[in-house]
Amino acid sequence: MNIAFIGLGNMGSPMASNLVKAGHRVTVFDLVESAMQALESEGAGRADSAEAATQGADVVISMLPAGVHVKGLYLGRDDAPGLLETLDASTPSTPNTPNTRPLIIDASTISPEDARTVAAAAAERGFTWLDAPVSGGVGGAKAGALTFIVGGSAEGFEQAKPVLDAMGKNVFHAGDNGAGQVAKICNNMLLGILMSGTAEALALGVKNGMDPAVLSEIMKQSSGGNWALNGYNPWPGVMEGAAAGRDYEGGFLTDLMAKDLGLAWELALGSKSTVPMGSQARNLFALHSAQGNGRLDFSSIQKLYREGE
Amino acid sequence: MNIAFIGLGNMGSPMASNLVKAGHRVTVFDLVESAMQALESEGAGRADSAEAATQGADVVISMLPAGVHVKGLYLGRDDAPGLLETLDASTPSTPNTPNTRPLIIDASTISPEDARTVAAAAAERGFTWLDAPVSGGVGGAKAGALTFIVGGSAEGFEQAKPVLDAMGKNVFHAGDNGAGQVAKICNNMLLGILMSGTAEALALGVKNGMDPAVLSEIMKQSSGGNWALNGYNPWPGVMEGAAAGRDYEGGFLTDLMAKDLGLAWELALGSKSTVPMGSQARNLFALHSAQGNGRLDFSSIQKLYREGE
Amino acid sequence: MNIAFIGLGNMGSPMASNLVKAGHRVTVFDLVESAMQALESEGAGRADSAEAATQGADVVISMLPAGVHVKGLYLGRDDAPGLLETLDASTPSTPNTPNTRPLIIDASTISPEDARTVAAAAAERGFTWLDAPVSGGVGGAKAGALTFIVGGSAEGFEQAKPVLDAMGKNVFHAGDNGAGQVAKICNNMLLGILMSGTAEALALGVKNGMDPAVLSEIMKQSSGGNWALNGYNPWPGVMEGAAAGRDYEGGFLTDLMAKDLGLAWELALGSKSTVPMGSQARNLFALHSAQGNGRLDFSSIQKLYREGE
Amino acid sequence: MNIAFIGLGNMGSPMASNLVKAGHRVTVFDLVESAMQALESEGAGRADSAEAATQGADVVISMLPAGVHVKGLYLGRDDAPGLLETLDASTPSTPNTPNTRPLIIDASTISPEDARTVAAAAAERGFTWLDAPVSGGVGGAKAGALTFIVGGSAEGFEQAKPVLDAMGKNVFHAGDNGAGQVAKICNNMLLGILMSGTAEALALGVKNGMDPAVLSEIMKQSSGGNWALNGYNPWPGVMEGAAAGRDYEGGFLTDLMAKDLGLAWELALGSKSTVPMGSQARNLFALHSAQGNGRLDFSSIQKLYREGE
Repeated sequence: MNIAFIGLGNMGSPMASNLVKAGHRVTVFDLVESAMQALESEGAGRADSAEAATQGADVVISMLPAGVHVKGLYLGRDDAPGLLETLDASTPSTPNTPNTRPLIIDASTISPEDARTVAAAAAERGFTWLDAPVSGGVGGAKAGALTFIVGGSAEGFEQAKPVLDAMGKNVFHAGDNGAGQVAKICNNMLLGILMSGTAEALALGVKNGMDPAVLSEIMKQSSGGNWALNGYNPWPGVMEGAAAGRDYEGGFLTDLMAKDLGLAWELALGSKSTVPMGSQARNLFALHSAQGNGRLDFSSIQKLYREGE
Repeated sequence: MNIAFIGLGNMGSPMASNLVKAGHRVTVFDLVESAMQALESEGAGRADSAEAATQGADVVISMLPAGVHVKGLYLGRDDAPGLLETLDASTPSTPNTPNTRPLIIDASTISPEDARTVAAAAAERGFTWLDAPVSGGVGGAKAGALTFIVGGSAEGFEQAKPVLDAMGKNVFHAGDNGAGQVAKICNNMLLGILMSGTAEALALGVKNGMDPAVLSEIMKQSSGGNWALNGYNPWPGVMEGAAAGRDYEGGFLTDLMAKDLGLAWELALGSKSTVPMGSQARNLFALHSAQGNGRLDFSSIQKLYREGE
Repeated sequence: MNIAFIGLGNMGSPMASNLVKAGHRVTVFDLVESAMQALESEGAGRADSAEAATQGADVVISMLPAGVHVKGLYLGRDDAPGLLETLDASTPSTPNTPNTRPLIIDASTISPEDARTVAAAAAERGFTWLDAPVSGGVGGAKAGALTFIVGGSAEGFEQAKPVLDAMGKNVFHAGDNGAGQVAKICNNMLLGILMSGTAEALALGVKNGMDPAVLSEIMKQSSGGNWALNGYNPWPGVMEGAAAGRDYEGGFLTDLMAKDLGLAWELALGSKSTVPMGSQARNLFALHSAQGNGRLDFSSIQKLYREGE
Repeated sequence: MNIAFIGLGNMGSPMASNLVKAGHRVTVFDLVESAMQALESEGAGRADSAEAATQGADVVISMLPAGVHVKGLYLGRDDAPGLLETLDASTPSTPNTPNTRPLIIDASTISPEDARTVAAAAAERGFTWLDAPVSGGVGGAKAGALTFIVGGSAEGFEQAKPVLDAMGKNVFHAGDNGAGQVAKICNNMLLGILMSGTAEALALGVKNGMDPAVLSEIMKQSSGGNWALNGYNPWPGVMEGAAAGRDYEGGFLTDLMAKDLGLAWELALGSKSTVPMGSQARNLFALHSAQGNGRLDFSSIQKLYREGE
């Protein structure tokens, strides 16, 4: 398939690379020259603009930092028309074809509201646009083991699935447009709660004489069992390979967790929801970041609970 | 083996029953006549007092409501000497035997402090005393599928394990005396956090248009995965067999969760620990109880998040 | 002075009325005909549009529901140019006058960001624009006893003060543009904390046998003293005239407090601030609203703490 | 009057001193020799034991660190009978006197439960025993400006008032025995909420461009007004004489605030109360203490909110 890939950051580059490996004809565009060169050396084509990259594409995939970039790309900016317009103008060139318009998949993490805005504008012009945020981090992107959480029509999801399978291990259909973003935010809020709760339970046990490895094992096999205990134990030395074992370097950063919990606040404000557990987690990670740990893995929240040892 | 079993409540009765089924000679004592009759009909012996029940026992097991009862049983009350005294006097009757003193296992959930107090008094008189609180509820007790979290010496644990295996599926050695209680409190605090956090994430998603079953499935297979999502989903209709499907009847009561979270507060006060997530959960369950839901399963905390729907 | 007043809601009407009483020539505009008639009967002039109302004005005052309305009024909407444009075109009609451009005061409660945006646009066209949100409610507006918290230049503040004095008792200069809004949000966050904290302390005391009036008096004169205890006691029957004494009817609504605490969240997100106390209060008021109390006075949060009595 | 004063710590010494200055005949006892010498040099008598100090006393006052000491003093310990016994035996020496038994006032801060236990034992033996915890700190004790919050009978309160007036400025009758302690705990919980809430509002404002002194003044005169803003501003430099101005040295220590908030937890556990605001404050002060600030004034919680500036 002809795939246009816009946005070659830490996540986008390995994702595009996996599409090339899967045999697709991939044309990339990014503002960073070196990122395009790297993909070119792996077999991708490159273009001088997003508009050029998407000419003749069956599928357009974007992976951008925030909602403002996604809106700029598709709806246009002061200095450039949006893809929805340029794609529109280019597609009728092959008349008498059932639907030659490319499927559009945005894998960025943005607000559900922004996702719905762009999706609606796309629908008006006859495009299927999907929000498909990922989880799994850079490691997952490289390994082709991402989780995609997709919002949009069932037909669009079916079309997208084979393409996403080349980059991910799990591909979920969350619901209509925006639902991909909502599900990701809810999941990450719960993750923030699990991680801080697990760190808190471990610290409470250790301060009362427990061995952290023994307590971890007991809780993992009991009703306290959760994702953090299974594969991301925050106490140093308990679990091989976990970020805790390398001074919390790398991984999913505290600042990113704080940002995702901020998206949960926005979701809660918009829907007048009560979120006492998620708010608690947000404030803990924000404090932890302010104390200088923003660039450490988020499981370093354990340190906050170990003060005064 | 000769086993004395003291305390035949909702938990103690099926536990004793499983010991009988496993072929042990069990002598029971409880203040409630009918409870003793039921066990008698299953093949247990009965005694008129705790002291009488423990005559000639190899193992003494107690399952009582609270620390005050456990201390009364072993250390004595105004109106009766404690078992540590009566057992002491009775044991030398078989001289020239290496150690004829029975092993003592207390399966009650009490404070670590109380457990350590009784264990120390027992050690002074030459007895091995273990704290072995359980999780798994009445269902687990009936099915012989309890989890035992044991505090005490490694030797004591080895001796106790075959007996506990007759009543449980998992038997953990948490550490020295008191560690069984500490580990149970930590686990249940984490459980309270998981359950309220899961209910909160589900409600946030649903208020933003998600289907609760779809969101549950996504989070379960992603980094939000936890024990509640795996087998105890709090949203009605999502999981067959869960308490949510029967109007939250039965199960592990809101009031018991609130009580366990109170034990976590006591542990935190004693060790000057910070417990923002556990405190949040405690206050949510306390409020939920005050609003009339104390006798519902604790997963009914979901209702608190669905107000105003 | 010639004053144009835009926005005659529950707050704006009595504010404009007080300006008339103070002897100013006031021209009003609102979309609601009856609101304009009422002011006309008190001596104000009326206009058919905001543009018309502001012709020849020395001071323009606006009192609108939200940022979107304020931006529409000054910056323009699809269907109408903004006042910054129409005022600009009208003012040069009197040449050789030092500065004939009217002072602009917006008394609406909007986000600091929106306030700064409009203020900057105004400055570009040579206007002094002040954000001057009020506290004191409808009662304060009628009594001319509002508090104005003003953001903008010191010169602008000095010019505005005599006009604001006609409507308020306290007029503060908070700092540059936006600071009026920031200060109001911080104050109302603290108010939400004080009120819920006071209700919580009273309930804890009463559940432990205290008389609420006695406890209120002790705390009021001790280190727990605060605005709520001084004049807005949330326990029914303790303080004459308080909303608690009339089933929490009227006053400052729970929903408005929840909204203001939401503005505090936005401020915290933008500045990466940790706000554990304010977040707690926001979630309490949001829950209280979801349980059907959104239209009651915010001191009704006391009810949440009295559940199960 | 003849007054026996037991317990000459940081608080007890200046309190006893003020009684001497007021013209009472004061006999003191403490285990610390130098503390007794200091009082002797001011005109007090001294005794070799609590029992000796209380011979012939009209009033007995105790000021001890914790409940265990208070119970030991009045109810006895292994090595010594309690005052309730020795006073009992000594009092009949003057027969035909209406009521020669001394009034007993305990000014220690202990749990309401302990206070009620000792008061009941005292009543059984015909003594009036009052719980009269103080607020105001060492400064208030020296200045004779303490606040006494008294639990016990109205008659006892009337008898005690003139004596307490010599040591304090405000003397409140909170209710029956234990109510003095309950009221103090509720007040201090609210104080912890006010102080952390005030620090949080100030930090939020400053991070959004406000001057802390201007914001303090606005909130003080608005609905955010509270005891902390009036006389104990936590932001350095805003208020002359406040602990914030001397690097938070001295004053009411973080550790003591954390302890009082712990007493609030115990009260909440006993009465099944929901205390989300007080819990939040407790965890903040506990964390602040663990981060090395336990011996600073409690207004240093401001530092926690200023991390990352």
